Amino acid sequence: MKNVAYQKGFGNYFESECLPVLQSQNSPQAIPFGLYAEQLSGTAFTVPRHEQQRTWLYRIRPSVVHTPFIPYDLPRFCAVTKENSVIDPNQFRWNPIKFSEDVDFIHGVTTIAGQGNPGCRSGLAIHVYSFNKNMNNKAMNNSDGDFLFVLQEGSLSFRTEMGIIEANPGEIVVVQRGIRFSVDLCNGTTKARGYMLEVYDRHFELPELGPIGSNGLAYAHDFLYPTASYQDLDNITFEIYNKYQGKFFKSTTFHSIFDIVAWKGNYCPFKYDLKKFNTINTVSFDHPDPSIFTVLTVKSGQPGVALADFVIFPPR
Amino acid sequence: MKNVAYQKGFGNYFESECLPVLQSQNSPQAIPFGLYAEQLSGTAFTVPRHEQQRTWLYRIRPSVVHTPFIPYDLPRFCAVTKENSVIDPNQFRWNPIKFSEDVDFIHGVTTIAGQGNPGCRSGLAIHVYSFNKNMNNKAMNNSDGDFLFVLQEGSLSFRTEMGIIEANPGEIVVVQRGIRFSVDLCNGTTKARGYMLEVYDRHFELPELGPIGSNGLAYAHDFLYPTASYQDLDNITFEIYNKYQGKFFKSTTFHSIFDIVAWKGNYCPFKYDLKKFNTINTVSFDHPDPSIFTVLTVKSGQPGVALADFVIFPPR
Amino acid sequence: MKNVAYQKGFGNYFESECLPVLQSQNSPQAIPFGLYAEQLSGTAFTVPRHEQQRTWLYRIRPSVVHTPFIPYDLPRFCAVTKENSVIDPNQFRWNPIKFSEDVDFIHGVTTIAGQGNPGCRSGLAIHVYSFNKNMNNKAMNNSDGDFLFVLQEGSLSFRTEMGIIEANPGEIVVVQRGIRFSVDLCNGTTKARGYMLEVYDRHFELPELGPIGSNGLAYAHDFLYPTASYQDLDNITFEIYNKYQGKFFKSTTFHSIFDIVAWKGNYCPFKYDLKKFNTINTVSFDHPDPSIFTVLTVKSGQPGVALADFVIFPPR
Amino acid sequence: MKNVAYQKGFGNYFESECLPVLQSQNSPQAIPFGLYAEQLSGTAFTVPRHEQQRTWLYRIRPSVVHTPFIPYDLPRFCAVTKENSVIDPNQFRWNPIKFSEDVDFIHGVTTIAGQGNPGCRSGLAIHVYSFNKNMNNKAMNNSDGDFLFVLQEGSLSFRTEMGIIEANPGEIVVVQRGIRFSVDLCNGTTKARGYMLEVYDRHFELPELGPIGSNGLAYAHDFLYPTASYQDLDNITFEIYNKYQGKFFKSTTFHSIFDIVAWKGNYCPFKYDLKKFNTINTVSFDHPDPSIFTVLTVKSGQPGVALADFVIFPPR
Amino acid sequence: MKNVAYQKGFGNYFESECLPVLQSQNSPQAIPFGLYAEQLSGTAFTVPRHEQQRTWLYRIRPSVVHTPFIPYDLPRFCAVTKENSVIDPNQFRWNPIKFSEDVDFIHGVTTIAGQGNPGCRSGLAIHVYSFNKNMNNKAMNNSDGDFLFVLQEGSLSFRTEMGIIEANPGEIVVVQRGIRFSVDLCNGTTKARGYMLEVYDRHFELPELGPIGSNGLAYAHDFLYPTASYQDLDNITFEIYNKYQGKFFKSTTFHSIFDIVAWKGNYCPFKYDLKKFNTINTVSFDHPDPSIFTVLTVKSGQPGVALADFVIFPPR
Amino acid sequence: MKNVAYQKGFGNYFESECLPVLQSQNSPQAIPFGLYAEQLSGTAFTVPRHEQQRTWLYRIRPSVVHTPFIPYDLPRFCAVTKENSVIDPNQFRWNPIKFSEDVDFIHGVTTIAGQGNPGCRSGLAIHVYSFNKNMNNKAMNNSDGDFLFVLQEGSLSFRTEMGIIEANPGEIVVVQRGIRFSVDLCNGTTKARGYMLEVYDRHFELPELGPIGSNGLAYAHDFLYPTASYQDLDNITFEIYNKYQGKFFKSTTFHSIFDIVAWKGNYCPFKYDLKKFNTINTVSFDHPDPSIFTVLTVKSGQPGVALADFVIFPPR
Repeated sequence: MKNVAYQKGFGNYFESECLPVLQSQNSPQAIPFGLYAEQLSGTAFTVPRHEQQRTWLYRIRPSVVHTPFIPYDLPRFCAVTKENSVIDPNQFRWNPIKFSEDVDFIHGVTTIAGQGNPGCRSGLAIHVYSFNKNMNNKAMNNSDGDFLFVLQEGSLSFRTEMGIIEANPGEIVVVQRGIRFSVDLCNGTTKARGYMLEVYDRHFELPELGPIGSNGLAYAHDFLYPTASYQDLDNITFEIYNKYQGKFFKSTTFHSIFDIVAWKGNYCPFKYDLKKFNTINTVSFDHPDPSIFTVLTVKSGQPGVALADFVIFPPR
Repeated sequence: MKNVAYQKGFGNYFESECLPVLQSQNSPQAIPFGLYAEQLSGTAFTVPRHEQQRTWLYRIRPSVVHTPFIPYDLPRFCAVTKENSVIDPNQFRWNPIKFSEDVDFIHGVTTIAGQGNPGCRSGLAIHVYSFNKNMNNKAMNNSDGDFLFVLQEGSLSFRTEMGIIEANPGEIVVVQRGIRFSVDLCNGTTKARGYMLEVYDRHFELPELGPIGSNGLAYAHDFLYPTASYQDLDNITFEIYNKYQGKFFKSTTFHSIFDIVAWKGNYCPFKYDLKKFNTINTVSFDHPDPSIFTVLTVKSGQPGVALADFVIFPPR
Repeated sequence: MKNVAYQKGFGNYFESECLPVLQSQNSPQAIPFGLYAEQLSGTAFTVPRHEQQRTWLYRIRPSVVHTPFIPYDLPRFCAVTKENSVIDPNQFRWNPIKFSEDVDFIHGVTTIAGQGNPGCRSGLAIHVYSFNKNMNNKAMNNSDGDFLFVLQEGSLSFRTEMGIIEANPGEIVVVQRGIRFSVDLCNGTTKARGYMLEVYDRHFELPELGPIGSNGLAYAHDFLYPTASYQDLDNITFEIYNKYQGKFFKSTTFHSIFDIVAWKGNYCPFKYDLKKFNTINTVSFDHPDPSIFTVLTVKSGQPGVALADFVIFPPR
Repeated sequence: MKNVAYQKGFGNYFESECLPVLQSQNSPQAIPFGLYAEQLSGTAFTVPRHEQQRTWLYRIRPSVVHTPFIPYDLPRFCAVTKENSVIDPNQFRWNPIKFSEDVDFIHGVTTIAGQGNPGCRSGLAIHVYSFNKNMNNKAMNNSDGDFLFVLQEGSLSFRTEMGIIEANPGEIVVVQRGIRFSVDLCNGTTKARGYMLEVYDRHFELPELGPIGSNGLAYAHDFLYPTASYQDLDNITFEIYNKYQGKFFKSTTFHSIFDIVAWKGNYCPFKYDLKKFNTINTVSFDHPDPSIFTVLTVKSGQPGVALADFVIFPPR
Repeated sequence: MKNVAYQKGFGNYFESECLPVLQSQNSPQAIPFGLYAEQLSGTAFTVPRHEQQRTWLYRIRPSVVHTPFIPYDLPRFCAVTKENSVIDPNQFRWNPIKFSEDVDFIHGVTTIAGQGNPGCRSGLAIHVYSFNKNMNNKAMNNSDGDFLFVLQEGSLSFRTEMGIIEANPGEIVVVQRGIRFSVDLCNGTTKARGYMLEVYDRHFELPELGPIGSNGLAYAHDFLYPTASYQDLDNITFEIYNKYQGKFFKSTTFHSIFDIVAWKGNYCPFKYDLKKFNTINTVSFDHPDPSIFTVLTVKSGQPGVALADFVIFPPR
Repeated sequence: MKNVAYQKGFGNYFESECLPVLQSQNSPQAIPFGLYAEQLSGTAFTVPRHEQQRTWLYRIRPSVVHTPFIPYDLPRFCAVTKENSVIDPNQFRWNPIKFSEDVDFIHGVTTIAGQGNPGCRSGLAIHVYSFNKNMNNKAMNNSDGDFLFVLQEGSLSFRTEMGIIEANPGEIVVVQRGIRFSVDLCNGTTKARGYMLEVYDRHFELPELGPIGSNGLAYAHDFLYPTASYQDLDNITFEIYNKYQGKFFKSTTFHSIFDIVAWKGNYCPFKYDLKKFNTINTVSFDHPDPSIFTVLTVKSGQPGVALADFVIFPPR
């Protein structure tokens, strides 16, 4: 992997810039280099302050400059709905997926299970990915929810609007709704496969610790966030694949949409190395419920009831 | 009715054993008689302590030993969905249902109304039952929600994994999601009919009392829970009917699944005699809203808004 | 407009009577003039006191006296459902709607967008209206949700069960679920058009003010509620159009259903003049999120997340 | 009693004016008749909207025009503190208090019990009053808490900044912190005695009703609030007695401080006739806790735990 | 120790009777044997149902029959107040207390530290006890708070109104406010010493478990509650020592006040054997905060902030 | 001022080190350079995650190495208590304080007002400071609460355990309970005076923004936190002045206690420049309550009721 710089601290407010742009104001009258200030909101404007997620982006061209979205057929990468699914109360187990040939990430995803409905912002989907080509001048935008990637084989390079994240198997990467990104193979990696959890409602959070106190499970300081990194590419054909209510749509721009020169905020992709998990368990008898191994959770409105938990079973 | 023993106290933590098994530990390394310890969870692991519902079961054979589930056609006993229902704003009233001949409980249920969707764990269904045969070596498992039985005619004997409940007309019985049970006629009863309320989301609770204080409406000590009772039947054919997302599936074991020798916990079927309801009402003028007659409620996340209320109108 | 009297104060408990009927009791044994006392509940009986919405109505004939509801075809005025809608991630803008000729309000409504499902009491719809005839001896009943009318052209006269509201362009009018009403043109108005927001879940509320304190945005005292006004019309044919789960049904009575002589409570239609909005904004730099212009909101169960906000952009 | 007009509805937003002053704005640049606009806050500025209590007052002279406060000795009317109290675990009962001669209200109050400390805004006091003279050109201001008067003998006339309340035995009157008032005898009454409950923390509220629903106990519409009534008296000597942290202070003005020409808001004294209480009780067996007879309550931060309850025992 | 029977389950609703008295009703018109029904409330009447603590007692004589309380001097067993305490920021450690000679429990208690004020129901005290005589026909009543006893040396026998608890070193015993009790030495024990934690506000609860799930730390089923046990002793002199606001008062009856023949409810003393604690800890690196060893906690109104925690440090 | 480096973001999790020490683990078995790892907790261990405040410190010598604390007389710098205060309901205004000669910070503080009691962790105090000498080898530790400094004249240099903060008039500085610090004059400053607000209960927070949304008032990114900075001074006499329950105590060490080589966490002093405040106000009519100018607040348990607000009145 090349040398990628990160910032630390789950949920921190960050500032990052490739060129000197940032000021105390968010959208001053005159922004250096003629950049455009845009706010990307990850939560409703009026949620309590500790739940606020949003980022100010300073970019070369406004994000709304693109051709209209037209439907694009990607039937294997979808939402699981009543119409396209089978109900079966038996337990399931999957064989390892085959490596796909000659496909990039976006064409190498297969949805295998799900519940709920992205149109109602309720439920989740589980996908597998397998690919061996890079996405060139293409980006994905997921309007439906947040992705949590579990890398199984092959190191990946995520180019996102906020910067670059490189990850190895054993690490997880989260890219939230509305943040455009591409997924490529790291140098030296020729093929990759793994899993993706997609949640349609709220964002991933660190679980409450209860009597465990102020340290334990995943530590906030082990979550790594990218630093600003931009492409100033013009007069090119750049494609955006937007997943919206479980269907794909495609649009074109004539510049790279990875043109963010600086940003500040706390709505940003991140990665975490599962080896750093501080495992808590009984040291006397019996064994606790698996909730004690929760790395990240998506809360519902009902206290203690998660919409989704990402849990690991560490070696004891 | 034969002499059935009960334990008292709504929501209590109980312990019951036919053979001496229980210890302070839940799943010790060596369990007497080579039994298997299984935890049955009625709530998410991490809900607040006063909402926790779960039971530890000590059984002769693991519950997972059964043939795969295959679809089974029971079209009258279902969920009410958009596809199979009629929308009509007029008020409805039903004639008494006819007594069915030559059917057992599971084949004698007809769904008459409903709302929502068990696949989303949201909503409810209303069923009527009418039957005159016992279920022999058959059990039902409802993966969709909790049943509240209102006995209209005929005394019933419920064999559940936690033990036996016998009930007469004027009593109600609740059997929660995932607890396997059969319903037979009590000695001296030749046919039975009545109603069933099924709720897909949370469990039945006693309503909050507000200014009524610490006594009133249904008393916690009038709710009766069974004591452990097991069958050690082997080399038989035993059928499990599983209702899952509004459809039925069937599986076979070669032993009785009512093989629980001891249990401890608070997730357990119960019954209540409606004659014991302590009625509160105005003693000066006007009349209160019918919420004052609530026996059991299923809370939603919104304070004071129930998903379902079971209400009686007592003689004044 | 004729001289219409109003009462003031958002969410106040009101009393209004055309004839002297009201007493401290709600449903005394003998009501003057042989009237019928009916309670119309806008919220569950057991919600916290500050969320309670209900009104006691004293009427000439019971509201349940009408012929059965039969389906009535109004395909343009509906709910937006999976079956009848198109999913498109592009931004939309609508041209002004054309004025319709020879239709009354109820036949002059077209649904243009929506989300969710009135059968689950979740989601919303957006309609436009355009008409040039009065509804004679007809009333609408919406079982699905509350309407917020935004008047664009033409002054309207709303006859509701609680009385008459007249409104001009620049004003908004809210008529809640289950309150029967008709919409006519005010004297001097020959045609009208505008918008309607329909919400299926909770009711419109004033937004919380947070650090703004106890004054700001829309003032409670600028919301105007009607006074009792009844018709004692008998031996006529009067039609009720009921929207229920996105479909229309029609029923007939032989008297005016606007026969309420007195009422008391806080579940009642109201109007508000947008010119009275007290605008708050930054006075130093940057610009706040548009939530700062919220006139009315429909809360969800999640703090700070609205189901719908009605927001205006006042001239600065 | 003379003919006093009232407004109805517990916690309503009211408007009342003797002269036409009120506008949609609260403090316009130019107020008619050169009046002064003052906001009197009964709650912190930022409490949730349904807890907000405040009133805008339009008065002839600013309320801050008075001589400095100097200590005034009223040792019998005080707070009960560690220094001046006896701790005794036995039950107490009091004989009827003797009628005092030649004293007005303010000099006729004796504190008999208490808890907590007005300086910390925590706790309460119980006083008795007995007097036979009117307060002439005197007013009391209680900086410590709210008074609830229980009239035992003698009809009273309360002149408050918001207007006049007249009350008979069997009625209760609440005057909140910071609202200046005088207490006189009604015409035809020669002496009076009764009880006063003073609470230092929050305000009196109607209790939550829980399963009782939306009607029952004290009805919101039976609480009566005064209408604006002012004195334009100048060149007089007018005394203000301020109770602050359990001690009295006195100040002088040279005009009547009852000079409010109009007001709007919901922070206002009120009265209630206990005969209108809708009593709820068991109609089958046992008897509920006395909380079921609560007329008004002062909530603490802990759900269901009151700082003080005013409870009546109605005849059954 | 003699053979003492217990009931199991923290916070359960229990029923226990020496003679057949209990019925579904709480206070029927005619109680068997002419007993008196009394409700002892451990919480406000209107707290949420899951916080309700109260017990119905059926006793031979009413509890109010006793001589008036008169002050009794016990200066070493008190509350720690501003007047009688020293403020010192240094850390403290105590030598083992000396065994007292010729004193019973009530005269063998010394208060060593404290905070707050029982008169405000806020704060706590820490006491040590050392005694070698039994209390004969004496009982203590603590009006100030709940005691948690930590037995260091000597087995103790607690006679309480709800029955007898015997405990050894390594066990803890909780006796709540208002439950009268005596503490004697078990057979074979000649002297005893240990610690007492007294809390003035709420009651001890099991801590929330957060991600630990539904099992872990102290198990609900290991908490043991007594069964009914009464003395029918008449024509004796029996002394009650009441601690009220940090001072002692004494009263006399002429019968044993341990005359409760049956009881039902959940406000009751209990014991717990610390060896049964299921210890949770890190199994990878670092060490968690000591909150992970919490056995019992007294919650404050602020989530996650305890008024007092009882914590053990188990051997690892 | 010299060149001091800061980190940005209110409430962020930070990491700072002078020497390479920090690892993912908090207290590894072997810490580089033989440092000691200590956790400083600003909140209870078990508060919800978003309220957690704590910092891990890596220091040369353990913080517990010091001589015992002995009382030290500083009568002008104290808590305001019932014994030492005057109650007066009149409004107060203070003249500018005189500059003190020949005193350092700790001897130059005068308490002028207060409420509550640090021993109960309830209430606040207001102090003024005036001094012209630096504290040499002295540090203050406040066990009672958090200080918010308002600089009026003279630039100050705060040496704290987490590093150095330099501030000018127009800036505010917060140093929390238990963080040891000294206050000196910046180069070029010969004397200083200003104000200090001390709060005994919770910590300062940014206020909720309500409808203002996700930007407005003080911006999180304008709060500046120090970077690690240590002294390795041995064989010196170093004095610690500890304020505990309103009284001072003094202790000695023989090394500088500012010996922290690295730290990580979010419990840390900070500063804010009031000129960066984004003022929100009405832009139409009337004026909002002053809560709209809140920079920092100390929440109570009651929603919307602050224990203390720090508010500025910016020029419009």
